[in-house]
Amino acid sequence: MAIGIGLLGLGTVGAGVAQILASPEGRHPLVRELVLRRVAVRDLNRPRPIELDAALLSTDAAAVVADPAVEIVVEVMGGLEPARSLILAAIAAGKPVVTANKAVIARHGAEIAAAAAEKGVYVLMEAAVGGGIPILEPLKQSLGANRIERVSGIINGTTNYILSRMAEEGASYEAVLADAQALGYAEADPAADVQGGDAADKIAILAGLAYGGLVDRQAIPTEGIDQLQTRDIDYARELGFSVKLLAVAQRQGSDADGTEVLDVRVHPTLLPKDHPLAGVNGVNNAILVEGEPVGRVMFYGPGAGAGPTASAVVADILNIAAIRQVAGPSAQLDPLLAAGSWRRCRLVDSDLTQHRNYVRFQAADLPGVIGHIGSCFGAEEVSLQSIVQFESEGPGAEIVVITHAVEEARFRRALGAILARPEVEAITSCLRTL
Amino acid sequence: MAIGIGLLGLGTVGAGVAQILASPEGRHPLVRELVLRRVAVRDLNRPRPIELDAALLSTDAAAVVADPAVEIVVEVMGGLEPARSLILAAIAAGKPVVTANKAVIARHGAEIAAAAAEKGVYVLMEAAVGGGIPILEPLKQSLGANRIERVSGIINGTTNYILSRMAEEGASYEAVLADAQALGYAEADPAADVQGGDAADKIAILAGLAYGGLVDRQAIPTEGIDQLQTRDIDYARELGFSVKLLAVAQRQGSDADGTEVLDVRVHPTLLPKDHPLAGVNGVNNAILVEGEPVGRVMFYGPGAGAGPTASAVVADILNIAAIRQVAGPSAQLDPLLAAGSWRRCRLVDSDLTQHRNYVRFQAADLPGVIGHIGSCFGAEEVSLQSIVQFESEGPGAEIVVITHAVEEARFRRALGAILARPEVEAITSCLRTL
Repeated sequence: MAIGIGLLGLGTVGAGVAQILASPEGRHPLVRELVLRRVAVRDLNRPRPIELDAALLSTDAAAVVADPAVEIVVEVMGGLEPARSLILAAIAAGKPVVTANKAVIARHGAEIAAAAAEKGVYVLMEAAVGGGIPILEPLKQSLGANRIERVSGIINGTTNYILSRMAEEGASYEAVLADAQALGYAEADPAADVQGGDAADKIAILAGLAYGGLVDRQAIPTEGIDQLQTRDIDYARELGFSVKLLAVAQRQGSDADGTEVLDVRVHPTLLPKDHPLAGVNGVNNAILVEGEPVGRVMFYGPGAGAGPTASAVVADILNIAAIRQVAGPSAQLDPLLAAGSWRRCRLVDSDLTQHRNYVRFQAADLPGVIGHIGSCFGAEEVSLQSIVQFESEGPGAEIVVITHAVEEARFRRALGAILARPEVEAITSCLRTL
Repeated sequence: MAIGIGLLGLGTVGAGVAQILASPEGRHPLVRELVLRRVAVRDLNRPRPIELDAALLSTDAAAVVADPAVEIVVEVMGGLEPARSLILAAIAAGKPVVTANKAVIARHGAEIAAAAAEKGVYVLMEAAVGGGIPILEPLKQSLGANRIERVSGIINGTTNYILSRMAEEGASYEAVLADAQALGYAEADPAADVQGGDAADKIAILAGLAYGGLVDRQAIPTEGIDQLQTRDIDYARELGFSVKLLAVAQRQGSDADGTEVLDVRVHPTLLPKDHPLAGVNGVNNAILVEGEPVGRVMFYGPGAGAGPTASAVVADILNIAAIRQVAGPSAQLDPLLAAGSWRRCRLVDSDLTQHRNYVRFQAADLPGVIGHIGSCFGAEEVSLQSIVQFESEGPGAEIVVITHAVEEARFRRALGAILARPEVEAITSCLRTL
């Protein structure tokens, strides 16, 4: 029973998908049933990594979506528009959609999910998070028995590559970024990666699936690695930590009306060396899911690349094709695979969250300064794991504090009190710690 | 739409399942639809970790299977019989089965799969491999686009716990095993774990799913950790390796008729320190899947325990319940979830496999002995990574060789030639190396 596929985009991921469909031998036999019917491209004459019959190509993406021979629409063009409109057009035509586009899902997820639920079609996006790592399908299809306590992950390969090299080589952020751009690991405009926006898109998707409700992507507190100094990575290592750009979605409790309250955030984070995510290096991604009763499970693998991403895109197509074999195109949706919202979620007021912190102070090298800093924290009942004075390169002292878990508002008040002391010159960095 | 569950067994896993069903709040809403109708136990009067209505309990497992109110049969009693007969009875009655029983699936998988295919019912077994780690569902539902090259894993928690402690403490196998038994991490009769049989059961299941065909469980070369000496763990560490009990299923090629030829095996293995599986310690499990085009993905988590195992059992129940909502009980099977065989597989002749090896020789402490050993390997064109002489406790010399990848028959011939030399007293250990 052949199933017609319409591909929107023939860049590296699109070509990877076409490559899989063109070589079904040795893959699951269902791959043979997937037939590429039309491919939307921007420029008909561009050279491509895969040879396709020219008659398949079209510059009219809307016509590909509308083509009656196209039964599943695969959006791998990226960007917000026209991707959003094409996805909505496919849904309106009753066609299931597979997308690798985290930006459009994170920003227009509510609109797309509502349209999909109304028409009863699947919109699947395994490739949007973690590249080739199976993570969305396991969250939906293998962890539903659990109450999810926390999802935390290294879900941006570019920043993990940069941080890994900064840690290994002691090189500066700027130097490694320039090199990563030259090698093609970072884009010419790296803002979405290095400022954390890409990771925030992805944790919004993960949180939505883990907790069964949409979260407000724009309200996720997001901090990137573009202000991070190599010195903090070095100090962290001396204290027994790795520094990673972590995306976290954590349950905080629930409101009286049952709304789930979540702490969702993206920021550079110190991880104890023996934490399962601490050893994830280079462009690899990993996602740790903690739930009751499963405990901790981790999913690890290549977070990007044509092959891994195409593997995830075709997985989604196969899931839709398999369900269609069972139930025909017009049946009710599989509640696990479709993963509709089943409760309301909201983000917590960040003043009320509790975190461990790493703070570096620049201070006058005077006797008693460590004591003063300790006393200011003590006055706000912020309990400390360590205060260490490091060798400063310039005049004065560099003092690094790691706190135990403390309410954010209390921690901020203590920092204010410390900054008001004449011997403390500046807070030179402030990072979260697991 | 309530779905009736019949539970066979109320040990730790069964109680864990009942616990999840009894507390659906905060879990996927489909959990609410699962209603425990009957529970088969061996002894009605035994105290249990969960309170259940006494009217649910029965000592007649066949009656639980036959009960018309039971729509899905969950077999968590373990052992070969009566588990096998009850599973077959459920299938004969057209009822889908969820089982955590790797032994019965590994040994009677062909019979059970044939019966299930004929009746068109699901037999799911996520909990049988890797405890709470989602691994079977991702293999089936998220990696179907791939040609699987290798599946390798640490899939026995007891032996990984023992090996981790031997490595950390330098303690002997016997001492750690005795302690593990006292702590409940190893059974009074530890044979199935320490001799590798449990891991062989599980790799048979993984290979069947990864390659789409049944493999002959009884023919899997299996070596446990019960002969392993702490000294080899120490030497391996000095050479940059961890020692783990690894289960591996690897594609070797295919016969002219398309039969897939697999190298499937279980043995203690040296892993380079930076290998993703090398850092998996304690009772944790991890499975690494390598495929084209995904590359390497890894799944990590608790390999045993009531909570994690129950999480996996309920995941299977939810998958069946979800499909039933879409398609009704009598529809065609979902080809991804049902995972029927789609090609023939056979095990390779092990003489034809290629592996890296670690060998420890006991030899006379004479000049030239390293040269002789090296020459014997050279005569068989076995290329070596290293030959190192370690301090021996007794008289004579201890010489450790690590080879590059070499055909098994050639390696065995070289060992024969070395043993024939008068200055070589014994091969004291021989382990595989990744």
